[in-house]
Amino acid sequence: MSGKKKKYWAGLDLGGTKMLAKIYDADFKELGASKRKTEGHKGLDSVIERMSLSIGEALEEAGVEADNLCGIGIGCPGPVDPEAGVLLQAPNLGWENVPIRKIFEKEFDCPVVACNDVDSGVFGEYKFGAARGARSAVGIFPGTGIGGGAVIHGRLLEGANITCMEIGHIPFSEAGLTLEEVCSRLAIASESAAAAYRGQAPHILETCGTDMAKITSGKIAAAIDNGDKTIKKIVKQAAERLGSGVATVVQLIAPEVIVLGGGLVEAMPELFLKTLEKSVDEKVLPPFRGRYRIVEAKLGDDAGVQGAAAWAAKSVEG
Amino acid sequence: MSGKKKKYWAGLDLGGTKMLAKIYDADFKELGASKRKTEGHKGLDSVIERMSLSIGEALEEAGVEADNLCGIGIGCPGPVDPEAGVLLQAPNLGWENVPIRKIFEKEFDCPVVACNDVDSGVFGEYKFGAARGARSAVGIFPGTGIGGGAVIHGRLLEGANITCMEIGHIPFSEAGLTLEEVCSRLAIASESAAAAYRGQAPHILETCGTDMAKITSGKIAAAIDNGDKTIKKIVKQAAERLGSGVATVVQLIAPEVIVLGGGLVEAMPELFLKTLEKSVDEKVLPPFRGRYRIVEAKLGDDAGVQGAAAWAAKSVEG
Repeated sequence: MSGKKKKYWAGLDLGGTKMLAKIYDADFKELGASKRKTEGHKGLDSVIERMSLSIGEALEEAGVEADNLCGIGIGCPGPVDPEAGVLLQAPNLGWENVPIRKIFEKEFDCPVVACNDVDSGVFGEYKFGAARGARSAVGIFPGTGIGGGAVIHGRLLEGANITCMEIGHIPFSEAGLTLEEVCSRLAIASESAAAAYRGQAPHILETCGTDMAKITSGKIAAAIDNGDKTIKKIVKQAAERLGSGVATVVQLIAPEVIVLGGGLVEAMPELFLKTLEKSVDEKVLPPFRGRYRIVEAKLGDDAGVQGAAAWAAKSVEG
Repeated sequence: MSGKKKKYWAGLDLGGTKMLAKIYDADFKELGASKRKTEGHKGLDSVIERMSLSIGEALEEAGVEADNLCGIGIGCPGPVDPEAGVLLQAPNLGWENVPIRKIFEKEFDCPVVACNDVDSGVFGEYKFGAARGARSAVGIFPGTGIGGGAVIHGRLLEGANITCMEIGHIPFSEAGLTLEEVCSRLAIASESAAAAYRGQAPHILETCGTDMAKITSGKIAAAIDNGDKTIKKIVKQAAERLGSGVATVVQLIAPEVIVLGGGLVEAMPELFLKTLEKSVDEKVLPPFRGRYRIVEAKLGDDAGVQGAAAWAAKSVEG
């Protein structure tokens, strides 16, 4: 490769419902983007084709030839074998053992790095967002489950042949309940539906009925603003419970910064983060107190795609 | 420094009851050693003096001038601020905020690296022992508490200003019980004393009475060999419970190798490790199964001192 050749990187964030591809220059300035629905029901081949199409469209918008790509980072919705570049499981798509690297290296003839989508989001926040400049960072995204990722020594924390940071599966009770069963957005929505059914959450009952699938983060925040005290209590309790998991992570990994993100946190950042902070502070061993910061994610949907591209660059260039 | 000058490293493992200093050449071949009691009751200044004395004696035995030391690694019995080189707390010695680096850099005029003693042991096993050649490793030492350490990307996992991997403080029950309260050697000894009192452990009763302080790892192993079935059950249950913590660590960090060490494991390696392995395997999420190895520590007491010296070398030389 000529020393003068310009460097470009692609990121692709593959989600269960949509995918987002972007092209960046060597300074990670965005040059082009393409977004489309995943349409997982059409099957693996169709989704792979749409992923290639998205990268192709983003390249076209950027005015960059595919030949000039130095690498592609792909954030995948499930655990990945990073060494082999294989998506091990994608529960939302019903996939198993998809050789992402092999498929896209063949298609684009450049290095392809597969990582977990939460990990790429955390790497994005570490490189460009809320954890920029930190020595180490953990990202936590409470949603359907609780996504987690970590950056240690400037690199993503990954096992040799499996991604990790399954924060949602930290035990919560001896009975076998895990953290995500008691404090994910799903757990909050389901408790809120029960409260609505019991007549304790009139605003939720009015706006969502008792269908937990309708109880989005925005609806939960609106119910609190409109005086549903039980809903506020449910959210606070979830943030407190999450605090026990975050305390465990602090005592195991001692990250400098803990980034909280996702729809639930975005919809009520103050309530959620303040409650969480207080809970973690109460639960960590005394020497850890004051040795971490809890902050809100900054980059939204961009974290995953920009982080995937930056992680590809870090993996290729060292 | 002249390029031809030979390189020597010192390690010191400071424990609550004894200290061990050793001198190594650049290939970490041992050249000299010195061991003495800590005698913490004589106070901080006395212990510091004894530490210097031990390093001095080891140098003398090695025939190495203090001027030729490239660095000293000191494993400390408590959490450390690695950036500042300060021992934050040493519960067994009653110390707080001891500026280890400053004290010994002044004394020996070479770089001094302070780390946690479990961390130095894990680094030793990673460089020279049971986890040699692994991409990443976690060490777990069930004793009075449960010590833990990790090596990630070839370096110890430490926070910027506090050491971590407090595996013993992973929650075990919603009621606030931690892992070490249900499966440390201390927990096993205390349950064994109760079993002896209830008449369910005749061999323990005969050899130790009901004094839990007398129920050492060796006595526990002997009781099992002599047919105390309740004691065997207690040990198995502890190993099973530890499995839930190890499963959490696997899902968070995905280490390639998990090294188990300490007196309890040494006294009954097969019973403890087999039971633990089975428990972890049952408890981890399916994609993690088979993606880690659980092995017994190899280096015994040497792990800490050799690991401290090697970690000093890694920290000084990068």
